[in-house]
Amino acid sequence: MPVCDRAGMTSTTLHTRFTEAYGLTTPIAQAGMAFVGMTPDLAVAVSEAGALGAVGVGLMPAPALADLVAAVRSRTAKPFNVNLITPLATVDHVAVACAAGVAVVSFHWGHPPRAWIDRLHAAGVRVFEQVGSTVDARRAADDGVDVIVAQGQEAGGHNYATLPTFALVPVVVDAVAPTPVLASGGVADGRGLAAALMLGADGVWVGTRFVATTESLAHDGYKQRLVAASATATALTGIFGPENPAFNPTRVLRNRVVTEWHDRLAEIGPDQPVIGYTDLGGTRVEMRRFSNLVPMRGATTGDLEEMALLAGQGVGLVTAIEPAAAVVESMTGDARALLGRFVGSGDSLSYPCV
Amino acid sequence: MPVCDRAGMTSTTLHTRFTEAYGLTTPIAQAGMAFVGMTPDLAVAVSEAGALGAVGVGLMPAPALADLVAAVRSRTAKPFNVNLITPLATVDHVAVACAAGVAVVSFHWGHPPRAWIDRLHAAGVRVFEQVGSTVDARRAADDGVDVIVAQGQEAGGHNYATLPTFALVPVVVDAVAPTPVLASGGVADGRGLAAALMLGADGVWVGTRFVATTESLAHDGYKQRLVAASATATALTGIFGPENPAFNPTRVLRNRVVTEWHDRLAEIGPDQPVIGYTDLGGTRVEMRRFSNLVPMRGATTGDLEEMALLAGQGVGLVTAIEPAAAVVESMTGDARALLGRFVGSGDSLSYPCV
Repeated sequence: MPVCDRAGMTSTTLHTRFTEAYGLTTPIAQAGMAFVGMTPDLAVAVSEAGALGAVGVGLMPAPALADLVAAVRSRTAKPFNVNLITPLATVDHVAVACAAGVAVVSFHWGHPPRAWIDRLHAAGVRVFEQVGSTVDARRAADDGVDVIVAQGQEAGGHNYATLPTFALVPVVVDAVAPTPVLASGGVADGRGLAAALMLGADGVWVGTRFVATTESLAHDGYKQRLVAASATATALTGIFGPENPAFNPTRVLRNRVVTEWHDRLAEIGPDQPVIGYTDLGGTRVEMRRFSNLVPMRGATTGDLEEMALLAGQGVGLVTAIEPAAAVVESMTGDARALLGRFVGSGDSLSYPCV
Repeated sequence: MPVCDRAGMTSTTLHTRFTEAYGLTTPIAQAGMAFVGMTPDLAVAVSEAGALGAVGVGLMPAPALADLVAAVRSRTAKPFNVNLITPLATVDHVAVACAAGVAVVSFHWGHPPRAWIDRLHAAGVRVFEQVGSTVDARRAADDGVDVIVAQGQEAGGHNYATLPTFALVPVVVDAVAPTPVLASGGVADGRGLAAALMLGADGVWVGTRFVATTESLAHDGYKQRLVAASATATALTGIFGPENPAFNPTRVLRNRVVTEWHDRLAEIGPDQPVIGYTDLGGTRVEMRRFSNLVPMRGATTGDLEEMALLAGQGVGLVTAIEPAAAVVESMTGDARALLGRFVGSGDSLSYPCV
């Protein structure tokens, strides 16, 4: 059926309160992923496509973050997000974000100090926090966090969600209204985007789907495994980085090391064999078994069956490695078509008297 | 904004392939719940409201099922579903359904014999199967099952899902296309209904929300606990009916017996204290601790903190005991409003050139 686009709308735009507030053309935010998002490429590609790109800071020192932010800035004028892991973040990271005036700083794995939130706000930086419960969502909103990212148990990577996406998002939306909420966990195609909006989210936070893009820094073997994996191929496990149990569990592909050790966590001792090497900011680092370093293209060598291949339960919907812009476009276009379907079907819904 | 309804549409109708094929006005199917759905009241109320009501057969002998079906028939001319637990079902139950020419027979907890499916089809009865994986979905579709009910890990009651709803539904839809799929697990309001349709489902299968209705046979104390419970108040446990581990796990409210015993399954022995009594078809039955009999209004006495209070993770969205028709109407109306929102917002989506 022919459609009439309103002014400014194209087949790859979809507006919500989130897009309006952040100058986006589609309500998709790239998850802030350490390792695979530690160079500008993915963030630039996602932001240039009209979604919100992100850099994942992880273990990166503040001066390196300043360089990374500058590098992204040199390639795009669009807004992007600097993602910090709360226990690894310092006031120096916050200062870098404030000085650069980035659009967004997001926190994961714990509520940031109120002073940091206030300082970011004073610098014009908006603050997101990823949470796994309504209690944490409420605390974040009460402390002025601008956008709540509701992480469901489907999500890849470090995951402390209390509920899966379908059950979590509506109760978080109700708990923090009118604060905007992004749905995280299991969102990997236009169906998930459209469904998240129906659950009351203002947008989605997408990790795994963006790992399997041309621009992501993930190791090619890791990307290929994402494409090959079914939705049931993940595990939520504490085996990676067992020296820091508070930073677990992590959802990963169930490769050999997971299959062999997931049920034997208590047997994991400190002396482990070397399973590879990775380059971190110019330094060659030995990877021992149960390392939580994620394999990167051009930086990591060794046996990927022994490494942490972070992935969410949306991985079954990842069937090709594509440019990030193509992912943004197809998710948006498919979501639009679904959202319009009931109006356009002629025997289903009421339609506006335009 | 004013809306123009097309012919035959009202604010409480919502059409999909599922409603068209089954003569419904909204794509909602009541889950087939033993105990709480063992009298006609709930099935009649749901079907009269334009959704698909169901009777839960459970342990009911075939002659009693014949009486129950006749009783429903005497009160509604609308289609309804007879839900069988596959390991408890017999050819006599199938014969009753065929003789009565009910609209639908659904199976849960295992694939029914192909001969039963064929016999039901020959009698004009359509067959649904509730599954928890793409493999089981494919097998069901290949054997001619008419509608696949994809049960996510959020679902209350006996649950052997491999994935949560958000991740399961799209991969099941893809696995069995063009066979229609209903989404089950966590669907308790209009948001869940709209989201399920966006995930590719043709409708939803709703349990917990219908337990907390005026017409359900659930014990009043059980209904009150559903209203009071948060979404995180459930557990997926094997403690109820431990003599039959293959019929577990079950998702229930985390009441005292669950809190005390969920992590001590191996300690549960055969001699357990009496915790109540229940009337089953006129016979007074002793309930011992870990019984999987569900407490019923006017039939069960004893301590509800020791009983199996089946509930899904949508329970956080259940805030009142209402008539089933009101539940159907509000879910449908809310879903319609959400599905129409992006078209009606004026700055979001394309709209049909009508």
